[in-house]
Amino acid sequence: MTGRPEPAPYLIAPDPALPRLTRAVTGTDQSGATVETRVVEERPLTIFLNGQEIVTAMTIGDYPGYLAVGFLRNQGMLRDGEEITGLSYDEELETVVVRTASATTYEEKVKKKTRTSGCAVGTVFGDMMEGLEGVTLPAAELRTSWLYALASRINTTPSLYLEAGAIHGTVLCKADQPLVYMEDVGRHNAVDKIAGWMALEGVPAEDKILYTTGRLTSEMVIKCALMGIPALASRSGFTAWGVEIAREVGLTLIGRLRGQRFVCLAGEERLVRDADPAAVPEEDRKSRRKGAKA
Amino acid sequence: MTGRPEPAPYLIAPDPALPRLTRAVTGTDQSGATVETRVVEERPLTIFLNGQEIVTAMTIGDYPGYLAVGFLRNQGMLRDGEEITGLSYDEELETVVVRTASATTYEEKVKKKTRTSGCAVGTVFGDMMEGLEGVTLPAAELRTSWLYALASRINTTPSLYLEAGAIHGTVLCKADQPLVYMEDVGRHNAVDKIAGWMALEGVPAEDKILYTTGRLTSEMVIKCALMGIPALASRSGFTAWGVEIAREVGLTLIGRLRGQRFVCLAGEERLVRDADPAAVPEEDRKSRRKGAKA
Repeated sequence: MTGRPEPAPYLIAPDPALPRLTRAVTGTDQSGATVETRVVEERPLTIFLNGQEIVTAMTIGDYPGYLAVGFLRNQGMLRDGEEITGLSYDEELETVVVRTASATTYEEKVKKKTRTSGCAVGTVFGDMMEGLEGVTLPAAELRTSWLYALASRINTTPSLYLEAGAIHGTVLCKADQPLVYMEDVGRHNAVDKIAGWMALEGVPAEDKILYTTGRLTSEMVIKCALMGIPALASRSGFTAWGVEIAREVGLTLIGRLRGQRFVCLAGEERLVRDADPAAVPEEDRKSRRKGAKA
Repeated sequence: MTGRPEPAPYLIAPDPALPRLTRAVTGTDQSGATVETRVVEERPLTIFLNGQEIVTAMTIGDYPGYLAVGFLRNQGMLRDGEEITGLSYDEELETVVVRTASATTYEEKVKKKTRTSGCAVGTVFGDMMEGLEGVTLPAAELRTSWLYALASRINTTPSLYLEAGAIHGTVLCKADQPLVYMEDVGRHNAVDKIAGWMALEGVPAEDKILYTTGRLTSEMVIKCALMGIPALASRSGFTAWGVEIAREVGLTLIGRLRGQRFVCLAGEERLVRDADPAAVPEEDRKSRRKGAKA
């Protein structure tokens, strides 16, 4: 289970070489020398639910279908019961249309808005907190050996995060194996793409761990809980409300996961301390430094 | 002008000791030891413009008046001409009301939305890009000695960013002097608080430099340009559209400003290279490491 000899391949891994996701830009460095550097793309994608335009997201532009479905699910606009009858993406028009068999309940959702952390004008549609009342997260175990294996594997996986920075990554994991690694300019897009993949592939959540490069804010904790994933880990820090919600819904919250260090501020009971932190190597400067860009 | 002997004090500096902004939370570390750690607060603030509820922001909760006014200005809901006749904050109700002499044009603004980077469901009201057409940024100079002095001063200023992480900082600067250092869980709140302070204090923008700990995404560049500030610097990275917009509006864009290194991807003509990068000390690990949390 340690995954050391031959780690299983990702089901979906970042493809930093994909030309569409980054652009080479010419500028100057501190010495005045001309430098060509790669920066991530940020392009609009307008999401339609049946006939209704819902939102225009700024995204790197990969996996528009997963992003659209995951976004609608995480906003409570697409429920488990609702059958998706169509999913079409038009690259030229930068639109993606999700069609459902029955009409959905999105209209009320679009009304009440809450601006959230890290936004120009972030909005969480009103019933995200309500949705949490129904949530009970399974009593899965979370081995510290898995956390260390996941962090070291993810931090060394070729990614836009390491290549260009200014991007967030979210990784769906099972035990010590990262399965699906999504990246986006918006950290919530990365989570939504994972939620969309899980929904469309019918992947269960109860045995999964979600890893994010972003902060453990209230809305990140809410999304993870709504997705039914019992553990959320990050190299970044916490907000008080994020911790509060994690404790309310019984989510295991691991933050500041760097090298041998981490802090657990909620759901301690799932932790199985089967690894000796002293045996874990410190992070190399590269992943630490690039982390600061995201 | 180098500010080395006796740096001028900030007009507004972070107060990480303020009890209201952080909470001590008890958890466990990697060794299983109980640890008490400080995490930043994240609380709702509902912004009203006259009789109209506009948005509920998640914020650490300091400077609600500056946040409200800056937000409304950066959304184009409050124009230069519009006289603010009242500004009232109710801590218990977590609301702030901005009153203007004449009715404002916010209704249309609330219609068209764009989801932006780093959001749950970020939205930029439709006319932010339009607003840019009128913008012409002054031909101010930007000395590299100022950039190095600002970065080293800001990175060593006591802040929630250094104390608790999981927060963004934005600093309004003039030459090598940081003037107003705002922090918030949402990096855009920090910028909006600066915009609100400038508007209410009647501070000119043409001789200022804006420093942010966050990424140089499209909406960050747009806000800086709309505020009339000709230079934007960050320790973080770029997005392609952020660079494109900066070049269109003639904004000087400095990114990855760490120790002696930086990259200029727009507005090179303002740069005066009066400092020898080799003479600049590398960042200490502390500010670099904590940077990754924000």
